[in-house]
Amino acid sequence: MRLNENLFRLKEEYLFSRVARRTKEYESRHKTPPVRLSIGDVTLPIVPAAVSAMRRAVEELGHIETFHGYGASVHGEKELLSAISQRYSEWGVEVGEDEIFVSDGAKSDLGNLSELFSGQNRVLIPDPVYPAYLDANLLAGREILFSRAGEENGFLPMPEEVRADILYLCSPNNPTGAAYTREQLKVWVDYAKKQNAVILFDAAYECFLSGENFPHTIYAVEGAKECAIEICSFSKMAGFTGVRCGYSVVPRALVRENRSLRRLWERRQAAKFNGASYISQMGAAAVLSKEGQRQLASRIGYYRNNAKIIAECLSSVGLWYTGGAQSPYLWVKCPDNTSSEAFFEELLEGAGVVGTPGS
Amino acid sequence: MRLNENLFRLKEEYLFSRVARRTKEYESRHKTPPVRLSIGDVTLPIVPAAVSAMRRAVEELGHIETFHGYGASVHGEKELLSAISQRYSEWGVEVGEDEIFVSDGAKSDLGNLSELFSGQNRVLIPDPVYPAYLDANLLAGREILFSRAGEENGFLPMPEEVRADILYLCSPNNPTGAAYTREQLKVWVDYAKKQNAVILFDAAYECFLSGENFPHTIYAVEGAKECAIEICSFSKMAGFTGVRCGYSVVPRALVRENRSLRRLWERRQAAKFNGASYISQMGAAAVLSKEGQRQLASRIGYYRNNAKIIAECLSSVGLWYTGGAQSPYLWVKCPDNTSSEAFFEELLEGAGVVGTPGS
Repeated sequence: MRLNENLFRLKEEYLFSRVARRTKEYESRHKTPPVRLSIGDVTLPIVPAAVSAMRRAVEELGHIETFHGYGASVHGEKELLSAISQRYSEWGVEVGEDEIFVSDGAKSDLGNLSELFSGQNRVLIPDPVYPAYLDANLLAGREILFSRAGEENGFLPMPEEVRADILYLCSPNNPTGAAYTREQLKVWVDYAKKQNAVILFDAAYECFLSGENFPHTIYAVEGAKECAIEICSFSKMAGFTGVRCGYSVVPRALVRENRSLRRLWERRQAAKFNGASYISQMGAAAVLSKEGQRQLASRIGYYRNNAKIIAECLSSVGLWYTGGAQSPYLWVKCPDNTSSEAFFEELLEGAGVVGTPGS
Repeated sequence: MRLNENLFRLKEEYLFSRVARRTKEYESRHKTPPVRLSIGDVTLPIVPAAVSAMRRAVEELGHIETFHGYGASVHGEKELLSAISQRYSEWGVEVGEDEIFVSDGAKSDLGNLSELFSGQNRVLIPDPVYPAYLDANLLAGREILFSRAGEENGFLPMPEEVRADILYLCSPNNPTGAAYTREQLKVWVDYAKKQNAVILFDAAYECFLSGENFPHTIYAVEGAKECAIEICSFSKMAGFTGVRCGYSVVPRALVRENRSLRRLWERRQAAKFNGASYISQMGAAAVLSKEGQRQLASRIGYYRNNAKIIAECLSSVGLWYTGGAQSPYLWVKCPDNTSSEAFFEELLEGAGVVGTPGS
């Protein structure tokens, strides 16, 4: 018996597990809990429309006349698929219900979708970015390249002269908050098509984008359906981090080696997944209703305002940062060449604030 | 860009997707819906204790004072972990909360757990068995051997003179309903230890076992903690097929190449999974409460009685079958050398009954 040696390539501890451990340690030594500005968790409750829908779903499951077992389709519940498709059409983009795959969350999809591709492919990952992309591809044993983001490119790396097969993009970027414009996304799409690469587009924070220049979906860019899979989440939009629901779009037009990736993903999901919770799906559908969207607006405004408060505070003490405008989080430059690890500790122990270290 | 060629090794359509498609086709042509005896879905509603707990969980998520975001631990919610650990101790087996990993269901775990192992390992799978084991390992590119089950061995294959690294066992077996005795499981455990193999023990239907000879957990067998991972589900026990909650046990004593598989699985889950729905987990914890267990008893009795009715019917028309005593389903020998595919069609079109074809 041999273990999967790729597991040994992972760092001993997942970044957010370590942050959680350090937070707990802090809490055990202090009476006042720290201010948590670390993992992208939410603090505001689920909107009433979704609470009602989930309550109804629970009741349905409690009565024989309305009980639901396994979902009828590998794509998800009809009601939710229809609401998602409708949302895209409001953005002027046509996405069919059979191109949508509801899941238990974007993190699972971001890792699992890479099963579509050979272990021999080369992956291009922005740096810094959400660490799960790297971990999933280390696990799959793929060669990994990084596209460097920094002050010099506004933390928005553009395609360079490298060959890569799988391109992870995240806009607004987690953790820098930098967001690609429509024109920049077009450059990535053209590059992917030229290289015959596939983009995995993480849109988990799209609800914080605003303005014509920043599309909520990569499919607003011409040609994207032929080269991009989009991964979305209800976690940040609707406070579903504990409810668990997300979805991915694998367009019909996405074909490689004469095979439909949509069909291959259908087959993979049928073999290794049994759908998201019916209750969560009903909650997610309600979030996308007119009433749900109206109720969400003030919550999204609240997080936006928090980002503004932090931004003003950082400016007032003279710390450089990016993000906060198209995202609910900010990426701060550590003062005096302190390492991010040291600043994380200083911030926690000195000010009772939990951040996320990164470089 | 190269696709994962292992995807092409899968049959065009997952078995249960095909059965669902044929059922839909039948429904479109008939007024009376067919009797569904196919996929192991449930028909009775969730027990009141779980409905109340899930209703409470939904309410908690709707108020800022009680809102929950991401789960605190990669293992699951404390309340559920404690209830699962307690259940094992009632069976005389000690399983720590840090050896339990709550998931969105057994199907996901049965496939994902194989990521612990190299693609070079050889897998031994009983035949017939739940098709997801085969699919997940085809996808991972592993060499696959089958241990043949038939009338001659009571559909309970025992170890033979083959070398294998990963052994899938399912007891009661899905779909044959044949269940291993404690003594037979001991033979498998000894074999696994001798071969340095790891058993993936699918206990999804354990709640239908009865009698001292048929342990509900492989850990009732001495030495199993050093060689077995157990995969469990609330789907069949509590009607959670749509709610989605399961768990796996990776014991502390399970070590290969000087590495703790429990630690490696913790790391994998942190990288690629974000926990089961909080609502589902609270429902599952309530299922395991005294009240929940009391309420479940009659439901399990109902499915057992259905199996008895089917068994009597089959006997009366002279069809040979196995299962139905330690499982809620039966495995029927097709009459007159009809193929299982042909009999599936005959049963559906002639009698309006959906079965699952298999050989």
